[in-house]
Amino acid sequence: MIGSLLVDHIGELVTNDGRGGDPLGVRRDAALLIEDGKVAWVGPARYAPAADRRIDADGAAVLPGFVDSHAHLVFAGDRAAEFAARMAGEPYTGGGIRTTVGATRAASDDDLRATVRRLRAEMLRQGTTTVEIKSGYGLSVAEEARSLRIAAEFTEDTTFLGAHVVPAEYADRPDDYVGLVCGPMLAAAAPYARWIDVFCERGAFDADHARAILACGQAAGLGVRLHANQLGPGPGVQLGVELGAASVDHCTHLTDADIDALAGSTTVEWLSGPPTNTVATLLPGAEFSTRSPYPDARRLLDAGVTVALATDCNPGSSYTSSMPFCVALAVREMRMTPAEAVWAATAGGAAALRRTDVGRLTPGARADLMILDAPTHLHLAYRPGVPLIRQVLHNGVPR
Amino acid sequence: MIGSLLVDHIGELVTNDGRGGDPLGVRRDAALLIEDGKVAWVGPARYAPAADRRIDADGAAVLPGFVDSHAHLVFAGDRAAEFAARMAGEPYTGGGIRTTVGATRAASDDDLRATVRRLRAEMLRQGTTTVEIKSGYGLSVAEEARSLRIAAEFTEDTTFLGAHVVPAEYADRPDDYVGLVCGPMLAAAAPYARWIDVFCERGAFDADHARAILACGQAAGLGVRLHANQLGPGPGVQLGVELGAASVDHCTHLTDADIDALAGSTTVEWLSGPPTNTVATLLPGAEFSTRSPYPDARRLLDAGVTVALATDCNPGSSYTSSMPFCVALAVREMRMTPAEAVWAATAGGAAALRRTDVGRLTPGARADLMILDAPTHLHLAYRPGVPLIRQVLHNGVPR
Ligand SMILES: [Zn+2]
Ligand SMILES: [Zn+2]
Repeated sequence: MIGSLLVDHIGELVTNDGRGGDPLGVRRDAALLIEDGKVAWVGPARYAPAADRRIDADGAAVLPGFVDSHAHLVFAGDRAAEFAARMAGEPYTGGGIRTTVGATRAASDDDLRATVRRLRAEMLRQGTTTVEIKSGYGLSVAEEARSLRIAAEFTEDTTFLGAHVVPAEYADRPDDYVGLVCGPMLAAAAPYARWIDVFCERGAFDADHARAILACGQAAGLGVRLHANQLGPGPGVQLGVELGAASVDHCTHLTDADIDALAGSTTVEWLSGPPTNTVATLLPGAEFSTRSPYPDARRLLDAGVTVALATDCNPGSSYTSSMPFCVALAVREMRMTPAEAVWAATAGGAAALRRTDVGRLTPGARADLMILDAPTHLHLAYRPGVPLIRQVLHNGVPR
Repeated sequence: MIGSLLVDHIGELVTNDGRGGDPLGVRRDAALLIEDGKVAWVGPARYAPAADRRIDADGAAVLPGFVDSHAHLVFAGDRAAEFAARMAGEPYTGGGIRTTVGATRAASDDDLRATVRRLRAEMLRQGTTTVEIKSGYGLSVAEEARSLRIAAEFTEDTTFLGAHVVPAEYADRPDDYVGLVCGPMLAAAAPYARWIDVFCERGAFDADHARAILACGQAAGLGVRLHANQLGPGPGVQLGVELGAASVDHCTHLTDADIDALAGSTTVEWLSGPPTNTVATLLPGAEFSTRSPYPDARRLLDAGVTVALATDCNPGSSYTSSMPFCVALAVREMRMTPAEAVWAATAGGAAALRRTDVGRLTPGARADLMILDAPTHLHLAYRPGVPLIRQVLHNGVPR
C-alpha cells in the first residue's frame, strides 16, 4: 500500500479537461491528489486535502505525461551513416528500412528487449508515460510475432506493422507478401497486438493492398492506424477515414479532399466511448531528420481536425525520442500555438490511441504527470532542446 | 590530491587535434589519462597507462566539452509571453530587451546569481564546460558593473555589453549614451571584463557608435567581439574584421564582401598565441526562436572562414542553453556536416574566445569532456532533442 500522495504548490496545472473554452484546462496555484495510482482530486492549493506523502512543485508547471502514439522501438542497429549521407544531400526514400530488417532478424530477443528498455527509459525521463510500439522490422511470421511479443512487455498499445515494406525476398511478388501478412503473419501477431498499421506510400503498399490488409486486421479485432501521405500525396488519409482508423499518421502532403475527409470523420466504432473520429498524427521529427517540408498543421486545426503529435522514433527517419522536441518543432515549424502543441502531445496522443485514461489530469485518470523545471507549458517551446522535465510520475509513482 | 584518472574503452574519441586531414582528430578504441585536471595522455586503449581511478566509457563516444562562446545569462524575469506572441506572428525587433532591463535592475544580487547558477548548471548537464557570459541588461554604470561582477563569479570569459541597446532614459540622446558607455561605464566594468561587445544593428548601434565603443574597449585592454548582421545586412562584420575582433556573432545576412573580409581576416593581435583571425559565430537558436532564416554556414565554410556555434542563451530571442540542440540545427538547417558542427561547438567556440586550453582533448588541455549515451558524435544530430550527455568531466572532475 503506497497511500495517498499530494502534488502541491503547482503554479500551472494543465488538466486537459476541456472546460471553459481553454482546451488545456489550466488551473493556477493548484494541487492534485493521487490515490491508487489515479488522480483522486484536483483543486486550488489552499483547499488541498491531507495526504500520506507530499511533493512540493514549488510553483512549477505540472502537465499530463506525454502520450507518444507512434514509435518503432523494436529494432537492432543504427543508421547514423545513412543519416549523415542524407544530410549531405541524399534523399529519403524509405529504402533503408531493409537495413534495419536485416539487423533486427539477426538480433537476439534480449538484444531487442534491451533496446526497447533503453528507449522506453529515455522517453520516460523526457516525460513520456504512454507509448505505442510497432513491429515492422521483422517481416516474417516468426519475426513479426517476436517483435510484438517483446513490445507487449512494455506497452498495451502494440501495433502490427507487417506491412512496413515488402521484404527483399518478396520484392518480385508483392501480392504473395500481402497474402502472407493477411494470413499466417496476422494470425501469429494478433495475440500480441491491439492495432494494425500499413505504410501506405508509393514504393511500399498501394491503396488496394492497404485496404486488404487493414480489413483483415479489423476482422481479427485490431484497431486501424495508417502511415499515410508522408512522401507525397496519396490515397492513405481518405482510406483511413473510410475504414474508421483511429489515426492517420504523417499527413505531410494533403489535398483539400483529405482535409475534408478528416474534418468530417465519423467512424465505424470499434471501441466503446469517445473519441471515434480519425486523428491526424503529425510527426515533425521525421521532417526534421529527413529535411522535408513540414505538414500544414494550421490548415488541419483551422478545419477542426483533431491533431496529435508523436515522435515516430525509429532508427531511419526520426531517431528522436523527445516529445518536448516535437512540441518545439510544432510551434516553430508548423505554427501551432504552444497550447495546441502541448494538447496534441498529451490529449491528442490519447485520442489517437482512443484512450480516455491518459493524456489528462482529471479525477479517475491515470496519475501520469510531469513536473517541469519551468513555470508554464510555454517553456517547452520557449526553451527548445533544454531538458525541462524535473520529475515524472507514472501510475502515481515517482520515477 | 585527486590522483590520476583514466577514461577507458572510448569507442570514438574526438580530440580536435586537427591532424591527418580530419579536423575532429577521431581516435577509435582509445583511452585518455587525466592528471591535475588536465589531459596527460591520449592513445589506444590497449596501451593505457595505470591510474588511480578509472571510468569505463563502455564503447561510447567521448568529446571535448562544448565551448559556448555567446550567452547572456545575467538577467531577471522571462519573456515567454513575448515568445508566444512572436510565434503567433509578431516580428522580432529586439525591442523587448528593455523589458528584461527593467526586471534585471529590480532584481537583487542573489536573484541574478541564482539565475546564472541555474543556467550554468543546466549547461553543464548538457556538456558545456566553458561559457562566455555577457552583461547588457543593466545599461547603467552601477548595473553593468554589477552584472559583470556576478558573471565573473562563474567564468573567465566575461563580456561588457553596455552597448546592447540604448536604454529608454537615453532614447532621445543616443550620443550621450555612447559617451557614458565609453567613459564611466567602461571604467566600472573593465575590472570584471575580458571582452567588449556591441549590438551593431539598425535600431541599436550604428557603425560609428560601434567603432567608438569598441576602440575605447580595446584601449582599456579588452578584446573585441560583435553582434553583427543579425536582422539585416550591415556594417558590423567588416567593422569587426577591421578591428581584429575575435568573433563576429550571428552573421545571418552576409554580402560577398563580408565573406571575403572574414576569409581574409588577419587581425591586430592583442593576445599572444593563435588563433588571431575573426571567427564567424553562428547562433541558430536565435533563428529557431525568432522564426528567421538561418545563416548560410556552407558559404562561410566553403570560403575557409572559421565557424563557431553558440547558444546566444537569453530570455528574448533564444532561450535555449543546449549546445546539442544547436549542433542538430546546424546540420538540419545550415547544412553543416555533423563533424563540422561538433568542431564548431567545441574547437570553434574556443577559437572565438581565443583559447587553446579548451575545445580539444590533447595533452596539456583542460580535462573538460563529455561521455555520450551514443557510440559516435553523429548521434548529436541523428538524435535531435534527446539528452545524450551521460557524464561530464570539468577540470577532470566528474560532475
Ligand atoms: Zn512510422
Ligand atoms: Zn547575443
